[in-house]
Amino acid sequence: MIKAGIVGATGIVGQQFIVALKGHPWIEIAALAASERSAGRSYKEAITDAQTGALRWFCQEPPVEEVMAMPVQNATEMDISALDIVFSAIESDQAKILEPKFAADKPVISTASAFRYDEDVPILIPGINSEHAKLIDVQRKGRGWKGFITPIPNCTTTGLAITLKPIYESFGINAVIMTSMQALSGAGRSPGVIGLDILDNIIPYIVGEEEKVQRETQKILGKIVSSSISPAKFNVSCTCTRVNVREGHTESVFVSTQKACEVNDVARVMREYRGSANEAELPSAPKRMIIVHEDPFRPQPRLDRDAEDGMATVVGRIRKDNVLKNGIKYLLVSHNTKMGAAKGAVLVAELLIRDGYIA
Amino acid sequence: MIKAGIVGATGIVGQQFIVALKGHPWIEIAALAASERSAGRSYKEAITDAQTGALRWFCQEPPVEEVMAMPVQNATEMDISALDIVFSAIESDQAKILEPKFAADKPVISTASAFRYDEDVPILIPGINSEHAKLIDVQRKGRGWKGFITPIPNCTTTGLAITLKPIYESFGINAVIMTSMQALSGAGRSPGVIGLDILDNIIPYIVGEEEKVQRETQKILGKIVSSSISPAKFNVSCTCTRVNVREGHTESVFVSTQKACEVNDVARVMREYRGSANEAELPSAPKRMIIVHEDPFRPQPRLDRDAEDGMATVVGRIRKDNVLKNGIKYLLVSHNTKMGAAKGAVLVAELLIRDGYIA
Amino acid sequence: MIKAGIVGATGIVGQQFIVALKGHPWIEIAALAASERSAGRSYKEAITDAQTGALRWFCQEPPVEEVMAMPVQNATEMDISALDIVFSAIESDQAKILEPKFAADKPVISTASAFRYDEDVPILIPGINSEHAKLIDVQRKGRGWKGFITPIPNCTTTGLAITLKPIYESFGINAVIMTSMQALSGAGRSPGVIGLDILDNIIPYIVGEEEKVQRETQKILGKIVSSSISPAKFNVSCTCTRVNVREGHTESVFVSTQKACEVNDVARVMREYRGSANEAELPSAPKRMIIVHEDPFRPQPRLDRDAEDGMATVVGRIRKDNVLKNGIKYLLVSHNTKMGAAKGAVLVAELLIRDGYIA
Amino acid sequence: MIKAGIVGATGIVGQQFIVALKGHPWIEIAALAASERSAGRSYKEAITDAQTGALRWFCQEPPVEEVMAMPVQNATEMDISALDIVFSAIESDQAKILEPKFAADKPVISTASAFRYDEDVPILIPGINSEHAKLIDVQRKGRGWKGFITPIPNCTTTGLAITLKPIYESFGINAVIMTSMQALSGAGRSPGVIGLDILDNIIPYIVGEEEKVQRETQKILGKIVSSSISPAKFNVSCTCTRVNVREGHTESVFVSTQKACEVNDVARVMREYRGSANEAELPSAPKRMIIVHEDPFRPQPRLDRDAEDGMATVVGRIRKDNVLKNGIKYLLVSHNTKMGAAKGAVLVAELLIRDGYIA
Repeated sequence: MIKAGIVGATGIVGQQFIVALKGHPWIEIAALAASERSAGRSYKEAITDAQTGALRWFCQEPPVEEVMAMPVQNATEMDISALDIVFSAIESDQAKILEPKFAADKPVISTASAFRYDEDVPILIPGINSEHAKLIDVQRKGRGWKGFITPIPNCTTTGLAITLKPIYESFGINAVIMTSMQALSGAGRSPGVIGLDILDNIIPYIVGEEEKVQRETQKILGKIVSSSISPAKFNVSCTCTRVNVREGHTESVFVSTQKACEVNDVARVMREYRGSANEAELPSAPKRMIIVHEDPFRPQPRLDRDAEDGMATVVGRIRKDNVLKNGIKYLLVSHNTKMGAAKGAVLVAELLIRDGYIA
Repeated sequence: MIKAGIVGATGIVGQQFIVALKGHPWIEIAALAASERSAGRSYKEAITDAQTGALRWFCQEPPVEEVMAMPVQNATEMDISALDIVFSAIESDQAKILEPKFAADKPVISTASAFRYDEDVPILIPGINSEHAKLIDVQRKGRGWKGFITPIPNCTTTGLAITLKPIYESFGINAVIMTSMQALSGAGRSPGVIGLDILDNIIPYIVGEEEKVQRETQKILGKIVSSSISPAKFNVSCTCTRVNVREGHTESVFVSTQKACEVNDVARVMREYRGSANEAELPSAPKRMIIVHEDPFRPQPRLDRDAEDGMATVVGRIRKDNVLKNGIKYLLVSHNTKMGAAKGAVLVAELLIRDGYIA
Repeated sequence: MIKAGIVGATGIVGQQFIVALKGHPWIEIAALAASERSAGRSYKEAITDAQTGALRWFCQEPPVEEVMAMPVQNATEMDISALDIVFSAIESDQAKILEPKFAADKPVISTASAFRYDEDVPILIPGINSEHAKLIDVQRKGRGWKGFITPIPNCTTTGLAITLKPIYESFGINAVIMTSMQALSGAGRSPGVIGLDILDNIIPYIVGEEEKVQRETQKILGKIVSSSISPAKFNVSCTCTRVNVREGHTESVFVSTQKACEVNDVARVMREYRGSANEAELPSAPKRMIIVHEDPFRPQPRLDRDAEDGMATVVGRIRKDNVLKNGIKYLLVSHNTKMGAAKGAVLVAELLIRDGYIA
Repeated sequence: MIKAGIVGATGIVGQQFIVALKGHPWIEIAALAASERSAGRSYKEAITDAQTGALRWFCQEPPVEEVMAMPVQNATEMDISALDIVFSAIESDQAKILEPKFAADKPVISTASAFRYDEDVPILIPGINSEHAKLIDVQRKGRGWKGFITPIPNCTTTGLAITLKPIYESFGINAVIMTSMQALSGAGRSPGVIGLDILDNIIPYIVGEEEKVQRETQKILGKIVSSSISPAKFNVSCTCTRVNVREGHTESVFVSTQKACEVNDVARVMREYRGSANEAELPSAPKRMIIVHEDPFRPQPRLDRDAEDGMATVVGRIRKDNVLKNGIKYLLVSHNTKMGAAKGAVLVAELLIRDGYIA
């Protein structure tokens, strides 16, 4: 079994890692780390509110009994010597400091954005750009690390990049316009979105999100050219909003393709999309990466976010657009805290284990 | 005082007409009509639930005491001889039958879509296309009516057409892409959107809505050429969704302009937009047709829908778009049941009274 | 296998029966019936919207493929000759007419209230009052039926009666005061609660609900005395409200007990409660009928409604009350459309099959 | 004009004070104070987010232009020499330190709980226990202060105490049982209730709330006996929950009265209740303290919270209860951030100004 440590284990993303690894066939949780305040306590103590005795467990799934007695280490002094991999669930500013420290010795798979835009760092989505993993060798060599850092994309990028991939392969893409209606869970809990602000409302701005989506989509759909990634050439323009939905980002997408294509062609290439290298056989992978509905009332976040345990991207309302050149429009729902966060990162780990980057 | 009748007076739109006309300086309610079931009862009886005694009053504003004792007539046999104008708040299939009957004698201002797309019927938004009122003469003559029919636009068209107008005038428009996040009130109450379906959810489809928005926007921004409207030439592509917001449609708009323009130019022409013919002096008109926010977290439907008593369109996040030619993007919030429904229809009546079409 | 028919199969409760019986070890679905409109079509056709092609499937669980090709019969002419049992998911006024017709020949288990208050009709909750099944013989004899009718309780009664039972057994009960905060799904979809009415709101009245809870609780906790039920003697006073929660009724309960008891005693008798006759071994039964939390922030409907697949009642905040004699207060969450509806009715069927009332 | 200072002016309660005092006929805002971080800046600067330029204004009412240029002082060093009164909108732990400092010189009216339970401190609700103001003299004398402290009640106590008062006067009270369904705004914004936690949910526990309601209700309805308050003798047992409503606490109340009374009697004494000393003539006072609905679907928080600008308590569903001795039950809605917070505190100031305690 691969021994994994989780940094940021008491937060919501850390807890999602614990859920994603429960009963995992290849990976076991061997260490947990969090802030100094939690250090030295059992995991259960660390997530128990001292005043009220309430358990601060934030996942819809029940608390994972197996980790409750495990000790929590101080993240800044974490002993990673016995680990094979570190899952990082910390904020970006902390990640800037801690992740390179861990990566000097061990592979780090991160949900933070700190290193996503570095030239020698791939943003991996297994099945979409698995071949970008080659950049890991460049990174190791250039930085003199035994380990490496591979971040996953921003949760809003994930579903967009996945659904664009078969279109890009089959028809080419000139440009993408997207409006997102993002779930509350994407904002986390510190404090995330306050109930007072979102009830009967929409928040029309998510700081930094739109820039991330454009940059990451181009990088993920880019090609490796002489040991670096040449980003895809099309532009992505988006408006990202927050709506009163618990989980599951909904995106309204308009695409201009290079070759003309019919609605049925787009539905077909999405449905048939299988990834580049048998990724569907990985333990956490969805059997179908993309599910396409004919029912015009789908996808809906509440009904579709959990498809394939939150690992599939669900698409509907594929139609012609009459504004863009060879315009196609559709909606997608993507589970932002499953495929878009911890479980997506575990899937990356599975790919890298299978392909020999982690051992 | 102009004497008005309201057809469909017991429904939610009818009640909004009653609220919009309460204390009106020019218009008084002189007759109410509804289905056969209500006919012959007082308005209060007609909206009182027999079983529970509950008042079926659906507006946020308190019930209007002045109409409670008024008799309700049967819409199909309504006596309009003493009226100067009929406000129609009925469904489209009924409107097809009843509105021409009324229009043979009297001016009819309607929230229904039944006649919106007829060649000799203008879709009026005072201040945006007031000059289309000229088509009324063509209509009267062609149909041999003493009265006429002027429908208001679909509530999703209203805010879009209003915000596009100053851009169109100043810079020209090549194309528009829009994703709407529409409020529950837009779906009415028969039964409208069920709570079970929208809680923690988005409905990605509103039957017929997208076609209406494209067609109406082009017609509203079109020009009168030899006694008919030549629609604006740009295409409008949209995706319309329903979100868990009570009132106020939010729209994410991407515009390609003919002349290049800066963000500040767009903000300026929107802020300075005053309409073509002193419409701001009409009793129900907003002082500012468009309010532009600099705060990137605006507009929000809950905070902005009631601006100028729901008659202003509120815009924010005007930015460059890097996909469309001379691309500009922004968000808007428009009150779908004030400017977008009954009170917007009352504003049309005011324009037509002032300009001599109703007397 | 026991062959079951479902009447009202296209509605939400009917669909919940289909889900509850999917893969059932003892019972298979052998017939489906609904209104005349659906008769003669396949189940899939019957629940497909003709205009949009959308599937009108209302459960959170995916549609059950096994029934899609089954024919739907007209409920009023349903052929039940080959069935062993009929599950009735129809409205009460229809149930009054159809259920006796079916019961003349076959056992009918119903979610409707039509016969709940008849003297010879038990309202069964397996594990709480299984012994009331004896009344079936009285009913058959008295009415000259080969079959019988056993309704389940109102969904708000279920969790209350279950949690009161161990208190009643161990300490006796003088009186109960309860305020409910009920989920939207309890109101069904015809049209149920409109989104506009419940967003940012509470509806303080549910027609007929409070009377049902008092009467049913007394009957369920009553004793069989010479072939009829002598209701429990304590009064139940409640106020039932509707809140913006999708599933899971929350109830705030205050109980006056006959013997004084401590908080720990109440928690213990609830936790240890196992039912009267090995009901936990029935296929749909929860392993624990009542789950008691120490965490004062539990139970919460979203976190606790699905405990034991919605078949457990979850209790928290057991405290002393200083107003009632020997006062105890607590909150409970009960899944109103699992234990409180179709799956609860299937559990009744299992009890009656095991105990020889159905064969 | 009475010159008022607001301490905690940048928080949500501080902003509600600013709104409540806008255009006040007797009181003008003369000083604002907040944390050290805000000190030395204009109010507008202090509530503007440096990163995004967004205005952190939390009230539904628009920002009050008149205060935007006013300087914000450091609360711990606030100069109160020119003030006639201090409104305190700070947290309880801070209030413990700062309020006595201010009270040494000036009258302090506070929304904090810090001093509510001190023997010489009245918890005033004008019209309910105005005569408790006499305790101010005892307080001043005992503490050697020129000023004094008068806190308002917890927002959940307010509506309960108001509706119990006419019952208590007319029929006497033996005991009260109450379940509250409280709005999000009652939890404030630091961070208050997170959207993720309350969507599709109820939180069954509010730390400390239940104890406050019991204690404060008894004190408010108590009598002054030889210079201290003798609390009302009846017990109050409650369960306080949080629901997904923005503003307006709903309470389900069960009361045992000493004298038997009919539903109509209770409705009448509530409707006729006018307070003890012409409080309705105070500028912020509601014309009707209690509004009683016959419609069984009222009160609803969204429809009734704003009655009399949030200063009336709205009651409905008055019925007999069959559990308590002379039992009566009803529901109430009370605006927790108008009558229950800042505007309620301004009303206290008005009473004390009129009666000569502030000058």
